[in-house]
Amino acid sequence: MSKLTDVPKRILIGRALRSDRLGETLLPKRIALPVFASDPLSSVAYAPGEVLLVLSIAGVSAYHFSPWIAVAVVVLMFTVVASYRQNVHAYPSGGGDYEVANTNLGPKAGLTVASALLVDYVLTVAVSISSGVENLGSAIHFVVEHKVACAIGIIVLLTLMNLRGVKESGKLFAIPTYVFVAGVFIMIAWGTYRGMVMGDTMHAPTSDFEIKPEHEGLAGFALVFLLLRAFSSGCAALTGVEAISNGVPAFRKPKSKNAASTLALMGALAVTMFCGIIGLAMATDVKMAEFPAKDLIHDGVAVGPDYVQDPVISQVAAAVFGDGTFFFVLLAAATALVLFLAANTAYNGFPLLGSILAQDRYLPRQLHTRGDRLAFSNGIVLLAGAAVLLVWIYEADSTRLIQLYIVGVFVSFTLSQIGMVRHWNRHLRTEKDPAARRRMIRSRAINAFGAFFTGLVLVVVLATKFTHGAWVALLGMVIFYGTMTAIRKHYDRVAEEIAADEGPSDDSVRPSRVHSIVLVSKVHKPTLRALAFAKLTRSDKLEALSISVDPAETKALKEEWERRGINVPLKILDSPYREITRPIIDYVKSLRRESPRDAISVYIPEYVVGHWYEHLLHNQSALRLKGRLLFTPGVMVTSVPYQLRSSELAKERAKKRQEWNPPGAVRRGPVDDRRTKEPSGKR
Amino acid sequence: MSKLTDVPKRILIGRALRSDRLGETLLPKRIALPVFASDPLSSVAYAPGEVLLVLSIAGVSAYHFSPWIAVAVVVLMFTVVASYRQNVHAYPSGGGDYEVANTNLGPKAGLTVASALLVDYVLTVAVSISSGVENLGSAIHFVVEHKVACAIGIIVLLTLMNLRGVKESGKLFAIPTYVFVAGVFIMIAWGTYRGMVMGDTMHAPTSDFEIKPEHEGLAGFALVFLLLRAFSSGCAALTGVEAISNGVPAFRKPKSKNAASTLALMGALAVTMFCGIIGLAMATDVKMAEFPAKDLIHDGVAVGPDYVQDPVISQVAAAVFGDGTFFFVLLAAATALVLFLAANTAYNGFPLLGSILAQDRYLPRQLHTRGDRLAFSNGIVLLAGAAVLLVWIYEADSTRLIQLYIVGVFVSFTLSQIGMVRHWNRHLRTEKDPAARRRMIRSRAINAFGAFFTGLVLVVVLATKFTHGAWVALLGMVIFYGTMTAIRKHYDRVAEEIAADEGPSDDSVRPSRVHSIVLVSKVHKPTLRALAFAKLTRSDKLEALSISVDPAETKALKEEWERRGINVPLKILDSPYREITRPIIDYVKSLRRESPRDAISVYIPEYVVGHWYEHLLHNQSALRLKGRLLFTPGVMVTSVPYQLRSSELAKERAKKRQEWNPPGAVRRGPVDDRRTKEPSGKR
Repeated sequence: MSKLTDVPKRILIGRALRSDRLGETLLPKRIALPVFASDPLSSVAYAPGEVLLVLSIAGVSAYHFSPWIAVAVVVLMFTVVASYRQNVHAYPSGGGDYEVANTNLGPKAGLTVASALLVDYVLTVAVSISSGVENLGSAIHFVVEHKVACAIGIIVLLTLMNLRGVKESGKLFAIPTYVFVAGVFIMIAWGTYRGMVMGDTMHAPTSDFEIKPEHEGLAGFALVFLLLRAFSSGCAALTGVEAISNGVPAFRKPKSKNAASTLALMGALAVTMFCGIIGLAMATDVKMAEFPAKDLIHDGVAVGPDYVQDPVISQVAAAVFGDGTFFFVLLAAATALVLFLAANTAYNGFPLLGSILAQDRYLPRQLHTRGDRLAFSNGIVLLAGAAVLLVWIYEADSTRLIQLYIVGVFVSFTLSQIGMVRHWNRHLRTEKDPAARRRMIRSRAINAFGAFFTGLVLVVVLATKFTHGAWVALLGMVIFYGTMTAIRKHYDRVAEEIAADEGPSDDSVRPSRVHSIVLVSKVHKPTLRALAFAKLTRSDKLEALSISVDPAETKALKEEWERRGINVPLKILDSPYREITRPIIDYVKSLRRESPRDAISVYIPEYVVGHWYEHLLHNQSALRLKGRLLFTPGVMVTSVPYQLRSSELAKERAKKRQEWNPPGAVRRGPVDDRRTKEPSGKR
Repeated sequence: MSKLTDVPKRILIGRALRSDRLGETLLPKRIALPVFASDPLSSVAYAPGEVLLVLSIAGVSAYHFSPWIAVAVVVLMFTVVASYRQNVHAYPSGGGDYEVANTNLGPKAGLTVASALLVDYVLTVAVSISSGVENLGSAIHFVVEHKVACAIGIIVLLTLMNLRGVKESGKLFAIPTYVFVAGVFIMIAWGTYRGMVMGDTMHAPTSDFEIKPEHEGLAGFALVFLLLRAFSSGCAALTGVEAISNGVPAFRKPKSKNAASTLALMGALAVTMFCGIIGLAMATDVKMAEFPAKDLIHDGVAVGPDYVQDPVISQVAAAVFGDGTFFFVLLAAATALVLFLAANTAYNGFPLLGSILAQDRYLPRQLHTRGDRLAFSNGIVLLAGAAVLLVWIYEADSTRLIQLYIVGVFVSFTLSQIGMVRHWNRHLRTEKDPAARRRMIRSRAINAFGAFFTGLVLVVVLATKFTHGAWVALLGMVIFYGTMTAIRKHYDRVAEEIAADEGPSDDSVRPSRVHSIVLVSKVHKPTLRALAFAKLTRSDKLEALSISVDPAETKALKEEWERRGINVPLKILDSPYREITRPIIDYVKSLRRESPRDAISVYIPEYVVGHWYEHLLHNQSALRLKGRLLFTPGVMVTSVPYQLRSSELAKERAKKRQEWNPPGAVRRGPVDDRRTKEPSGKR
């Protein structure tokens, strides 16, 4: 910090004590787990059901494949967790998949990952909210009857909360997440106890339903394809696992180690819950169908379009605890809450990723500013708008939305893991220490397997879900990719255009003198201030300029000018059409023509006001004029503000705005850790 | 023009030849008549029908009062025309009713007139378009079936035309207006000839209908009230008569005389057409009912809600020429077209009145600029929005809209005439010449009678129509009045706040030195230009300031700074939160605290771009910063523009925009006549 002079140091120290920054303390593991795990853990609320739902296409007999699919998901989860533990150690800066892909595979791969993640954030909101509404609906019927409206209402609520800058708090996450996890574990334990020890037979509400298979007696390739599709759906349980790799700086020291163990714990919890729910679903004879209205048969009759298919977790809870009991309602509420929190993580992640992309000039520069409220707001509104659109189009049906979901996740998993392999290869080229080399080789093997496996899953997901909606997600990625490429190209073109030539001075038409003009309408305080300021900055020529739109007013102006003995020459331009802009522009241009080496400095007195409507009443001509003057080469425009009393109000408002907390502060960790201790690579 | 130097004179002379101003030639009477008379003449398309419609409440027997009502309208028309001929002579500047009331009765009366006129312009659009659609619908049935949609469509079309700046052209007005006038006169002549000479009995389409009276056997006060209400409706024929008094400067010399004779001719045409149509309607047994669905009886049965009651003019045309004949269709088309032109006059008048009000600070200042596109656009959009709202609420039903219409007209008639009486009183106090005094006394008598008669009509209109909708118009007037008063108060308060104290220099904290800061992010051409400009305007201290958001970039900046040997000290402020605005504001404030008598001059390099989307990518931080800096006392902000290549595009666009023609140019006349040759009074 040696470069700091006294003043900014004082500012910084002052800031370090600001209460609004106190939230940025480091997270202990017990808080970090719920903060980062609400997204992946909440997915056990819908993933098991999706597996059963796909299997039901081949009839209820296909349900006996479900344990095998659960095993495949568990293996995949272990692989992904093991892979990301390598990421966490190698990239403690929290750059995440985008940074890994960008650094090791080049900007195109990085941008692909970024597009995939952006699409994924949108889908996280849409899927989590829809599923949350469905879970809430299993306890409160009204909600499921107005599913779309409720889902959109909750998105709007979350959006408003995040726009206002309600800060993520560890506790806010901890309570529902732990209640949810505890609830599911109690359910699994109690269900197992009742079934195994007490010998109860538990019945899900759908246990006496039958399923009419869409395709009878599937076999061979068709069956394999169906199993793969069921597996793809089960992979929804994997979404959100990568979040911790973005959040390493938020952990207490040793950061990487703590993050890695949290990741392992999260993986273990997720697979246990996933398998437990699938197991209980089998034990309680849950029936799920892709098209319940026609394929679910009760007493020989299809249940029809009015039937609401409750989520597996709620059916299991009804079987284990009993429908409508305290535990049932508590679990439904906790499930819904955790799903809404999962959606909220997207509100934190989306603008954060946006700011990283802005830093690399893929998005408008101002998004880069940390805590820039406007930038965050734009990101949040974009995210919410896209999510509402999806919820509306897909009628808040989590099953249909999940078809779109998993593509993005696995694109970033795969590219990130490939990037990690490259990372280790590069380091192995220089590393001499045998112990370190051994560790690296082991890590490389894990990442290579992770890349292979997630890549395979990506292919499976694309093959089995492309026509079911994955193409929408791909289209979204292409749109993001195209837009960001175009923005980057624009910035690059401008950077080239404005690059300074070599040599100490290179502005081709270097002006040698400056001619200052103060715009005057009347002799009042703003004008006098502008004149005083213009005199202070000494120019080669100084004159006051007034546009005459009314002969009487002009006469009065000239008289007062003389009476006050203002020692600046006053020039009057006639404007019979009562225009302001054109005569001034023409005059400035004529001055430039006469002496092309003169720069023109135009001083405009401006009112600073406090209310939005006052802007309509003041400065409009000045604004327009300024806009036009900036197009005229060799001109600079100086605003000399005059603060009206009402401007105090706006000042207060602006101060308040600065107290605003950008979303995502908790999971991002404190500032210094990220930017200054960046590891190898990158820049 | 002695005050003009060479440069602006050249500009002015250059401008005088600009093609876009050539339209502003003076109008001969034969063109002036259609330009100003489309509004009042077109009202004969609906006024006669409204009279019959009100009378029908007392049953068809009440129709025999219609000639008496016509006589009353004719007398009123002569009175108003005679009165306005005095206005035209006394106020050749074209200030119109607002100026007359403002000058002679004070600002409150002026503002009342202005509010009335603004409401009236909105209603002119709503009523004329609705009636035009009804007339067009008598020939093309589709139009009347989609009445509201068609009316709104035409309003949108007119709005777009006026926003694009399609100039009023005398010819555009002349053809449909003369076709319409000729058509009505031919109809009257042919109808009279057929009836009187050939003895044909002509039958309107509704001649064999009967009317079920709403109130049977009205007599006494109730009958008088009904007759007064019918007369009030007939007064719709008077709307628009005052337009010529605004347009005197557009006439050829002798302006006032030509305007007065045009006014007389217009009055004569209007009453002839009005009486002729009423007469033919009686002769052909036209039946109109206020609620045709239930009160029009055909073959003993009510015609029902599907029945469309065609306007009187079209029923008469069907009787005289035959339904669907060439003349019938031609007249219907000409009527509709003239009504649309009448609506268009409001598009010209509304922003024009707005600019006069802005001059008196009742509306935002920038509206004052003549030909300011943005200002005109706002006025046009406001007008169109209000008209669409009314058309939508009243389902494009001209009869219901007319209930609102006449209040505003007669408020301004009455106040204007009272103002004229005061005008003559004032002049009589100083005038010595007996001939002139005689003329003035005669004029005063005419205006006094006009004031009395129009005042009486106003009372009648209010009494008979208040509950039928006139209250809406009054409410509109109150809203306009309140808003404009508030705006004026705001301007007055600000004017007081910024009034310069006496003495040659009075800015309380006059700075003695100036400390200049050039904001730097990278060393590129815009930065170098800003540095060069800042050096040109010599300040007491000059430094470059950069915000460090990325240590690597800051290091590169410092190295390049030294390598190029830029002889301005570079100060770096650390910003760990990647904020730009706050560190700069804090730094500037600290400088002000250290030396309160220093002014701070901040130079910001700005990109000038050509596309709207480029604005999203550039200058956002600069804009925000500038906004915040302006709130900091003792600071001035200088934008040093750097024109990117794409800015050429925007320059072209801006040039094109300047070629734009403000609506109302034709009827307003050339510039010099209005502002410089202003008569007595006012300022």
